[in-house]
Amino acid sequence: MDVSQPSVLSAADSLALRYGAEAAPAAGAWNEHIALLLSHRSIRGYRPDALPGGTLEALVAAAQSAATSSNLQTWSVIAVSDPDKKAALAKVAANQKHIEQCPVFLVWVADISRNQRLGAEEGVTLETMPYQETFLVTAIDAALAAQNATVAAESLGLSCVYIGALRNDPQEVARIVGLPTGAFGVFGMCVGYASTAAASGVKPRLPQDVVLHHEAYDATGERAHRAAYDALIGGFSARNEMAMDTWTKRVIGRMGKLAAMAGRDKMVAVLHAMGFELK
Amino acid sequence: MDVSQPSVLSAADSLALRYGAEAAPAAGAWNEHIALLLSHRSIRGYRPDALPGGTLEALVAAAQSAATSSNLQTWSVIAVSDPDKKAALAKVAANQKHIEQCPVFLVWVADISRNQRLGAEEGVTLETMPYQETFLVTAIDAALAAQNATVAAESLGLSCVYIGALRNDPQEVARIVGLPTGAFGVFGMCVGYASTAAASGVKPRLPQDVVLHHEAYDATGERAHRAAYDALIGGFSARNEMAMDTWTKRVIGRMGKLAAMAGRDKMVAVLHAMGFELK
Repeated sequence: MDVSQPSVLSAADSLALRYGAEAAPAAGAWNEHIALLLSHRSIRGYRPDALPGGTLEALVAAAQSAATSSNLQTWSVIAVSDPDKKAALAKVAANQKHIEQCPVFLVWVADISRNQRLGAEEGVTLETMPYQETFLVTAIDAALAAQNATVAAESLGLSCVYIGALRNDPQEVARIVGLPTGAFGVFGMCVGYASTAAASGVKPRLPQDVVLHHEAYDATGERAHRAAYDALIGGFSARNEMAMDTWTKRVIGRMGKLAAMAGRDKMVAVLHAMGFELK
Repeated sequence: MDVSQPSVLSAADSLALRYGAEAAPAAGAWNEHIALLLSHRSIRGYRPDALPGGTLEALVAAAQSAATSSNLQTWSVIAVSDPDKKAALAKVAANQKHIEQCPVFLVWVADISRNQRLGAEEGVTLETMPYQETFLVTAIDAALAAQNATVAAESLGLSCVYIGALRNDPQEVARIVGLPTGAFGVFGMCVGYASTAAASGVKPRLPQDVVLHHEAYDATGERAHRAAYDALIGGFSARNEMAMDTWTKRVIGRMGKLAAMAGRDKMVAVLHAMGFELK
């Protein structure tokens, strides 16, 4: 499958790729925008080709067009192309080679520092800053922005992958890209043109019945749905030469042991040191 | 301006609406997808018309197509149409009338309960569950999913607005939509057709120079940019009959006093009670 541009499949075919033919919902509303969204794949191999001029600015314009809580705009983004910086960031993220390969690596920043500077310049103490709620708002706003940038990038034939492993060592990330106190690299993102070798299929997700509830949460039937999904994702893993063979094993592998957190179990202390009190 | 369907403006016109003519970046990459993203407005008034059949499922398929950390899929969404439930949710959210008006109100849920059930059924203790990192992943994944749903909705001529004020009383939200322990309504979202009276312009954002940094964070020139943005958003507020006249005043109004948090300063204790230890 050519991953250099979004494939435009029918609704039924797109839904079958995302859920498996058995679990796909009936094709409903459909257009080229929804087709693009359903075609998303995380790509972990890039050609060195630079982004065309004006592309980064278009992605950021899309990002800034996302909703932001009370228009507070508590996020920033650092575009990193310098090879040494990308190598240092890759080292934080368990040496994921695509961070060095991609022409632009974005560090998405949960950022209360700008609004803190505003308060300082205006001589006003901003009492809400030390709270968990404020940190949560910054992380959500950064995520909404980043997702719009992802959609814009994929619409241009670019590929992306989120890099949560920047959180393995947020203070080292802050050192690499010079973040002030009150700025936290909440996740990274590779942006570039997928290498042919990195092509992969659309990853199936849990059936809608498991995730979407009507009027009230209802976990009825969840166990049977999980068994069916385990079989589906097992087939996907085998076709894509991936090791993890069921979703059940994946969840246990990533959530079972503290060692899988790769240092992120210390995040509260790290955030305190970086200017987020989390009261 | 007709807000019932996305307007397709030129790149230059769209960027001028989002940043003001003075601060707009040069028009770069552009297509109908980026035009849709830049046309976003949060809409706070809805007609009662129901969503066409299959629309909700298309939005959720878009949401599930967003990236999710390690494919853990730690989010759920509750679609609420029942008038009594919408009224109760509106009450939590400072009586925002659009929650009752919209035909479908979505409660986006940061959800570790499903993976907890998996662990229990498999007889495995999932050691990472009580950590701040795990809560952060659930909130980010819910946000990525919700933003894809927003884009899909707007591509169909629907409108949306995020409702952070569900966090004023997360336990009451949990009671209304029957959430289990380990499930937290992280924000809500109205979905429906905008009423003509609710039409509003594209809200200008901070200049890109303030938000986008190259290689390293750089706040140089930020204060002058803020002054220019204060003037720009002041004009926008006046044209749209909104009270808040500068961004500086907005930030101070929302972040200055604890009273503005409307109870969200108690979120850590509330999350503990709801099954998120935040270690």
